[in-house]
Amino acid sequence: MARSERLKNLLVLLERLRLDGLFISSLPNIRYISGFTGSWAACLVSPRRRILFIDSRYQLQAEREVEGFRILTVTSSGLFSALCVHARTLRLRELGFEAHALSYASYQLLKRALKGVCSIHAAPPLVEKIRMVKSREEILRLKKLAHMTDAVLSQCRGHVSAGMTERELGALLESIARDAGADGIAFPSIVASGSNSAMPHYRSGGGRLRNGSPLLIDFGLAQGGYNSDLTRTFHLGRVTRRYRGVYEVVLEAQQLAVQAIKAGVAASVVDFCARDYISSRGFQHCFGHSLGHGLGMEVHEAPRLNRDSDDILDEGMVCTVEPGIYIPGWGGVRIEDMVLVERDGCSVLTASPKGIEDSLL
Amino acid sequence: MARSERLKNLLVLLERLRLDGLFISSLPNIRYISGFTGSWAACLVSPRRRILFIDSRYQLQAEREVEGFRILTVTSSGLFSALCVHARTLRLRELGFEAHALSYASYQLLKRALKGVCSIHAAPPLVEKIRMVKSREEILRLKKLAHMTDAVLSQCRGHVSAGMTERELGALLESIARDAGADGIAFPSIVASGSNSAMPHYRSGGGRLRNGSPLLIDFGLAQGGYNSDLTRTFHLGRVTRRYRGVYEVVLEAQQLAVQAIKAGVAASVVDFCARDYISSRGFQHCFGHSLGHGLGMEVHEAPRLNRDSDDILDEGMVCTVEPGIYIPGWGGVRIEDMVLVERDGCSVLTASPKGIEDSLL
Repeated sequence: MARSERLKNLLVLLERLRLDGLFISSLPNIRYISGFTGSWAACLVSPRRRILFIDSRYQLQAEREVEGFRILTVTSSGLFSALCVHARTLRLRELGFEAHALSYASYQLLKRALKGVCSIHAAPPLVEKIRMVKSREEILRLKKLAHMTDAVLSQCRGHVSAGMTERELGALLESIARDAGADGIAFPSIVASGSNSAMPHYRSGGGRLRNGSPLLIDFGLAQGGYNSDLTRTFHLGRVTRRYRGVYEVVLEAQQLAVQAIKAGVAASVVDFCARDYISSRGFQHCFGHSLGHGLGMEVHEAPRLNRDSDDILDEGMVCTVEPGIYIPGWGGVRIEDMVLVERDGCSVLTASPKGIEDSLL
Repeated sequence: MARSERLKNLLVLLERLRLDGLFISSLPNIRYISGFTGSWAACLVSPRRRILFIDSRYQLQAEREVEGFRILTVTSSGLFSALCVHARTLRLRELGFEAHALSYASYQLLKRALKGVCSIHAAPPLVEKIRMVKSREEILRLKKLAHMTDAVLSQCRGHVSAGMTERELGALLESIARDAGADGIAFPSIVASGSNSAMPHYRSGGGRLRNGSPLLIDFGLAQGGYNSDLTRTFHLGRVTRRYRGVYEVVLEAQQLAVQAIKAGVAASVVDFCARDYISSRGFQHCFGHSLGHGLGMEVHEAPRLNRDSDDILDEGMVCTVEPGIYIPGWGGVRIEDMVLVERDGCSVLTASPKGIEDSLL
């Protein structure tokens, strides 16, 4: 989907909501719609004109990156009065704003600035809705990134040994990622050894990798504005019966969920497939987090795969499937892959081996 | 300042605003007040009780990290109804929320959940106000981090050579940072060569370091929840008269600003000292960004050093001083140090050499 296509889709959504403009303040959304990659900007999209507001630090960069937008340099305190001038010029009547991405304080400034000029309306996540379904080009990028992620894990796996710290392994992972050509890591890597792996969102610390215990590695690469996300759990040294039992339940739960994925299926149903199986095997209190999440320009984006999700899966969505079982004092097992939703099923984009034997180090 | 001290200060601010509770949604603020380092949480602070709301991923971690708070596990969709239950139990009447840190959409949910229970009020950045002035322990951390940052730059400087790419130098910088013991980098490093350095917020790309042109390096380290920030500009190969001229103006502007810093001085006045000098030397259109910003748990925090700032500098604040001159097509020079505000002046925490001769490679 070219950028012009994205804009066209957004204008259709605006028309359905009877809005004649959208004020965009979410940076990933601004990047998606305009191509601008800086750390401060806002955007006004209307059928007649597109405006990108930046500050002076980004003048040259915006001129290089952005086409089809008028680029205006403002100060952060002058943003809303500049917006007001243009809302007036464009004769906007009903302006939407991103209710999930604008702070209440900024909303107050927006309201004050536009008083008497046009009405403002809290809009749902519209750009996120378009971003959910990836274009052919985006899918290609994510596939390449998934391969790269597999390669990084495989290389890293060869260096794992008892006695090294989680932090050392995390640093190694990141240096391999960079050598492989990634811009960087997508989020702080989780390298959790032994009982630390019972904390689903542990951050790598000074814990040492020990024989006879699990090692959970959850990491992602960032490249060209897109992100990957992969988890594998390993076991160092002589394997225990408990590890085998837990691992096999998680793997089976993941496979059940993957098999359930195709266009038209509710995300909450996919979550149920994994969750119900884990519960049925006696681990009902050991899987507290969501089954997965969309990913692309953000590591966590729509659709959400959890109990409360209203999202319906559609062709071209890319999401993670990552059930886990966590047992305080012992450790945890999580297995996560990136999956592309297709008409009659799905493709698993990450291909790191995940059989129980592959997990033994 | 121990955590109990921070809480006490916050309760004083709340009382002044006649609020009997504060709903905290900013993650750095939550970390500052409670010690919790996870990626999702909310906090309720009242004279009678402190509650930390987390999700199930963080149960064990929160128990390890947090003291003096009741820890409650909720789902993100159940947060506001849980908050409502406790607002009722605590008989809160006037609850503040962080207007700058709560999205409009979340504000709507908060309002709906607390309807008939208590009034809600948009509060100014209260925790940020306390965070501005660093405790002795925080200052020690930031001093150590500043030394580490100097050492990383010095080591990196030795590896710079014409022909390498900006990205390679950026990766080197980060690997040196990690070897030096940093948790990671504080923000995407800026390594800008030649005319790329005219973009104040350039991100390191494929540009090659070339003789006869400037090289701007702006980076920071992250360590234990705190951040550093340092910029030096270098010149590769035979130096030009233009570079010397620009460099000397920036250095003089920075020194004028540093000399102006002491407790009681308005941040806007410090900004003026540097800006006015740069303008007086004929570069009035070449310095568009702020002079500096506070830093600590966030890379950019209060106080703001710019024209529009209302902040008054106070003993114990730590901020950057970073004037620059940017000339499209040629390049730019920026010199940035971390500065500790003192009663009768200031200490410059970063000590990387910055004389014109030191900048020649």
